[in-house]
Amino acid sequence: MKPAPVHSRTDDLSALARKAAELDAADELAPLRELFTVAPGTVYLDGNSLGALPRHVPARMQQVIAHEWGAMGIRSWDESGWWTAPERIGDRIAPLIGAAPGTVVVGDSTSVNVFKALVAAVRLAGDDRDEILVDAATFPTDGYIAESAARMTGRRIVPYRTGDPVGPRTAAVLVNHVDFCTGELYDLPSVTAAVHAAGATVVWDLCHSAGALPVGLEAHGVDFAVGCTYKYLNGGPGSPAFLYVRPDLQPSFDSPLPGWNSHQDPFGMTPGYTPADGAPRGRVGTPDILSMLALESALDVWNGVTIEAVRAKSLVLTDFFLECVSLEAVTPAAPEQRGSQVSLRCENAGAVMKELIARGVVGDFRPPDILRFGFTPLYVSFGDALRAARVLGEVLA
Amino acid sequence: MKPAPVHSRTDDLSALARKAAELDAADELAPLRELFTVAPGTVYLDGNSLGALPRHVPARMQQVIAHEWGAMGIRSWDESGWWTAPERIGDRIAPLIGAAPGTVVVGDSTSVNVFKALVAAVRLAGDDRDEILVDAATFPTDGYIAESAARMTGRRIVPYRTGDPVGPRTAAVLVNHVDFCTGELYDLPSVTAAVHAAGATVVWDLCHSAGALPVGLEAHGVDFAVGCTYKYLNGGPGSPAFLYVRPDLQPSFDSPLPGWNSHQDPFGMTPGYTPADGAPRGRVGTPDILSMLALESALDVWNGVTIEAVRAKSLVLTDFFLECVSLEAVTPAAPEQRGSQVSLRCENAGAVMKELIARGVVGDFRPPDILRFGFTPLYVSFGDALRAARVLGEVLA
Repeated sequence: MKPAPVHSRTDDLSALARKAAELDAADELAPLRELFTVAPGTVYLDGNSLGALPRHVPARMQQVIAHEWGAMGIRSWDESGWWTAPERIGDRIAPLIGAAPGTVVVGDSTSVNVFKALVAAVRLAGDDRDEILVDAATFPTDGYIAESAARMTGRRIVPYRTGDPVGPRTAAVLVNHVDFCTGELYDLPSVTAAVHAAGATVVWDLCHSAGALPVGLEAHGVDFAVGCTYKYLNGGPGSPAFLYVRPDLQPSFDSPLPGWNSHQDPFGMTPGYTPADGAPRGRVGTPDILSMLALESALDVWNGVTIEAVRAKSLVLTDFFLECVSLEAVTPAAPEQRGSQVSLRCENAGAVMKELIARGVVGDFRPPDILRFGFTPLYVSFGDALRAARVLGEVLA
Repeated sequence: MKPAPVHSRTDDLSALARKAAELDAADELAPLRELFTVAPGTVYLDGNSLGALPRHVPARMQQVIAHEWGAMGIRSWDESGWWTAPERIGDRIAPLIGAAPGTVVVGDSTSVNVFKALVAAVRLAGDDRDEILVDAATFPTDGYIAESAARMTGRRIVPYRTGDPVGPRTAAVLVNHVDFCTGELYDLPSVTAAVHAAGATVVWDLCHSAGALPVGLEAHGVDFAVGCTYKYLNGGPGSPAFLYVRPDLQPSFDSPLPGWNSHQDPFGMTPGYTPADGAPRGRVGTPDILSMLALESALDVWNGVTIEAVRAKSLVLTDFFLECVSLEAVTPAAPEQRGSQVSLRCENAGAVMKELIARGVVGDFRPPDILRFGFTPLYVSFGDALRAARVLGEVLA
């Protein structure tokens, strides 16, 4: 049975406060919070939308802007490593998603990477495979882009839910790893295996899992994956997305956006296109260096931190938050089905979230009736979770 | 007859030095140089590759990073105007390229924007128009992307040179406004008129003209245009590109990259795609805010500056440089055929450019034998032009 909401039972509140204090005291990741800027008085539970600023990033960006751009100018493309940043930063992300070096490249938005990956996936399939299966609960942009990919490759879209059949007409399957709205975590190994058993390829959207939980791309033989870096990877607003291509698929990766940065000899300036080998084949145009180097700098907070430790704390943290609140949780209670967020169903959710934010508890609202709270174990404490639940109780009362 | 090279005639040198001093003294744009950071002792003639850093940008970016991201976090999407940045910054660029407000949107790379514009252009044409004409001397990425656009829309590429026939089979024409290698400026009004007379649409790549010379998109009825912002617009390394769609074509603009940012109601999170009206229809995914706001800040140097004044100085500046050097100019002498760069043919051009850079004159090398010097009137002086010519003479001697 669920405990009563914290706003109604003083004894519960003090017991929960003791528990929060004990959990914080035992939390090995707790010192990492000092690496981040979180506004004083704020419980920031929106890291699943925009990750908090790592404290060292502003100084690094001053150096990038004033020295690398201002003083060194064009030479920085070579001498400051700008040109190779997309694959170098990809290699920093790779271990967090269980990928080998040389398989991840950073650049463009998630939407653009969905287009690259999905078109490339479809191009691996025979013409008789005329269907693209798309997660029925997908974050909308994946669906919009998939429609375009289908139109431009002569396929049709079929809505897909975990467990739906994947068959001989399936060219590719596009699925979200964690549902952006409900926070449900899908079973990547079994879905990937089912897609492969049907002779199709899978594209995983890791926007809500990269940096939040182990993904195991290599271990599970995932074909393609994309994800953003401004949520649990704290890369900054609109920081570039990433693209993963399984090593054995790289030689046949046929991008619909073969920009000059993906050429084998970009500065040869030849009129004919010859794609680069490996991860750089996923590049397109000139990378947005400022956004990209802010991301690279932000990734320093992961030095010495394992994604397994982050996941372990995330589950205890979201368990504890669920214990503290009385609203109906849309997010599954089973740990193996839960991402790093908690979504609660709530009447007047939009107005409630507005009031929460006014009182320093920052989550977000997703229509029609969802309060979303993201838990980033690198900087969210158990005390934060309790305070969020308490303020929510006050707002609802 | 060309004057002798400056390194060989002392009297020429002193006459040219007097002329440079007079031209600098009369230059109304000269004070703008103080707005930029150019490394001491450097003549920076690579603004056609990476524009110099405006001095005020580092402070603005500290504010964006520390305050808007760090302190305000997710609220900045609304309260700091992040969400509307792509069209707001588009409106800042619009007057520099002769476009009306609401017609330009910033985001993604030039390559990605070529794909959007060219596919959209082709989709306006009937199926019987099965050819895409592509500038035979195009910057390579446009050609690579055009091949992909052709493949995905069932068309074929035909190389195009100014004056070539545009006919009833032409769906769209993709042309560079200024040749990246030779610096030749093409006749936008007459090419546009010829394309229209044949019932086709034109996509202009303004990478080497935006911020360098008047373009007159609206005046000449251009259909689509794209361009980068890190050259003559000084937006910073890899700053986002722009897309122009003529107002009457906006309602039928059918993007191949219909990401959620281009939806009429992006936060409605609806599964069906309904495109936004106007310039935002050209958006795709979440914009790279740091790169984008650096660009916005950099555009402040244009306050009170007209593109006509910049062009006037550019022509005198490149005339003067041509007068000072003895190498064969690949760039046309006729002002109406010249961009804001001078390309010189030179034996061992790669090694010569390396030595020039070592001596503080920064241009670049384009294979096989071209020395490229970009002249940005906002921060390049006549004294700079003379010094560059003199050092070039020394290196060649």
